[in-house]
Amino acid sequence: MFVGVDIGGTKVLAGEVDAHGTVVRTARRDTPGRRVPAALVEAALGEAVREVAGGRRVEAVGLAAAGFVDVSRTRVLFAPHLPWHGEDVVARLTAAWNVPVIMDNDANCTALAETAYGAAREASSTVLVTLGTGIGGAVVLGGELWRGAGGMAGEFGHQQVVPGGLPCPCGRTGCWEQYCSGNALVRHARARLGASAVLNAVTGDDPGALTGAMVTEAASQGDPVALAAFAEVGDWLGVGLANLVAALDPALLVVGGGVSAAGRLLLDPARAALARSLVGAADRVVPSIAPAALGPEAGMIGAAWLARQMVS
Amino acid sequence: MFVGVDIGGTKVLAGEVDAHGTVVRTARRDTPGRRVPAALVEAALGEAVREVAGGRRVEAVGLAAAGFVDVSRTRVLFAPHLPWHGEDVVARLTAAWNVPVIMDNDANCTALAETAYGAAREASSTVLVTLGTGIGGAVVLGGELWRGAGGMAGEFGHQQVVPGGLPCPCGRTGCWEQYCSGNALVRHARARLGASAVLNAVTGDDPGALTGAMVTEAASQGDPVALAAFAEVGDWLGVGLANLVAALDPALLVVGGGVSAAGRLLLDPARAALARSLVGAADRVVPSIAPAALGPEAGMIGAAWLARQMVS
Repeated sequence: MFVGVDIGGTKVLAGEVDAHGTVVRTARRDTPGRRVPAALVEAALGEAVREVAGGRRVEAVGLAAAGFVDVSRTRVLFAPHLPWHGEDVVARLTAAWNVPVIMDNDANCTALAETAYGAAREASSTVLVTLGTGIGGAVVLGGELWRGAGGMAGEFGHQQVVPGGLPCPCGRTGCWEQYCSGNALVRHARARLGASAVLNAVTGDDPGALTGAMVTEAASQGDPVALAAFAEVGDWLGVGLANLVAALDPALLVVGGGVSAAGRLLLDPARAALARSLVGAADRVVPSIAPAALGPEAGMIGAAWLARQMVS
Repeated sequence: MFVGVDIGGTKVLAGEVDAHGTVVRTARRDTPGRRVPAALVEAALGEAVREVAGGRRVEAVGLAAAGFVDVSRTRVLFAPHLPWHGEDVVARLTAAWNVPVIMDNDANCTALAETAYGAAREASSTVLVTLGTGIGGAVVLGGELWRGAGGMAGEFGHQQVVPGGLPCPCGRTGCWEQYCSGNALVRHARARLGASAVLNAVTGDDPGALTGAMVTEAASQGDPVALAAFAEVGDWLGVGLANLVAALDPALLVVGGGVSAAGRLLLDPARAALARSLVGAADRVVPSIAPAALGPEAGMIGAAWLARQMVS
């Protein structure tokens, strides 16, 4: 039995995943947070793994961590929601659990899962983008994940797309994820909230209560403010993907993350912007934009896949 | 004997290159142009190769073409200065010359040369940028050139960096090479020509006569207008490189092309902008920016290296 664990900002999701990528059983815990002892986080992970195992022997555990994982894949250099900061987490958990442990960042694990079992199964090369609060990214070339010289490849969300643009929590301005993410979607819709009876009703006239899920639901009902927000975010998605295709020319683009649940409301404007923005579009194959196939469990599935690869 | 041929916008440069990357002898021809029969261009290439060979047997010929070379490396899909448009040039020249021929685009050949013999010899992964009239680019990962699914990787110059920015001959706006290239350097200096006694003198008060070489020479003499033009182009170089590093996290950045002859006048502002613009700079190794080592013959040297690899 192989277990994948997705360690997200708010929750830990552990699951047994079989050789076909099917999730057999799962367990959840809340993520204890960043300003707690690391032992608390590690205990929560251990509990989730044990609950999934239910007393059976675990062959190996894969971890998908939301943060910068170093090139040796043993350390989290920085994570916004975790207390880890450079220590050898993999060695510590391997010793504590007495089972082989492997780790990578969540976007890389998502890309591995989509490549092994999902939307990128047939693609010789893939650039994956996940749109959640921000942007996650990963690069798979010739079937292999390109992790970067220091393990930091795929940080597409912090490419500057607007000089002197919107401030980003990373400390710079004009980062792509300020224009193309769940946060950007909510910002667009909130700015025109007064024009939407649907959104005013679901938020109780409180702009602060607006969420990405509300915008998605309103857009699926044809609300013009919500549709305009998706058109704007989708356009920025296509522009940013065109920049990545100009550099890497992958066979396929895969878009996942919570915002992608809107499907064509997001991807149609993205496809139009990609075709318009890509250099040499008339003399090349413009790559398809495919929706991710494995949903929010993809990170966990990819982590389990890594664990399986490690011992086989 | 292996021969490399760099087919540029204005001239054809052929050269015998030994196994250490040393150029033994060269021959030049003018590039006949785009609106001429392809046979005229191919005859010029053949003459240059024969002159280099001087009657000796040629083992193989490598071609570095300024244009889109397809993924099979046999066809030029589009080139701004050549009459080729999709035909199998490699098969035709192999038959005409009765010698193995291989081709790639000029930036890829430059990257192969710098990796085999030059600035990137020790690097596990490299992003190369050449600044000439526009921007050329190439990606070398784990010692291998990443050419893209369709052979179009490395078109960094047409990444959009300013929404609704300067028009580009490619038909779009705000492309990186409009802000960071020899053309951009000249445009900056020309806009402030009146403030530079040095540049006024060398141009004879004719702004249209200003060239990148004049700006480089004036900057090396400390002319403030020329220095400001390099500071501006260098800053954009660092910003664009930060975007590439965010995506690919290479071990090394190499900058070549005519504009890079200015050395630190260009690279110092680029290094400052890279450190300022790169996500997570405090928690990662910021890659060095190295000047290309092989100069304007790099494309030819890389083409000869390709020829040597093909038959060995």
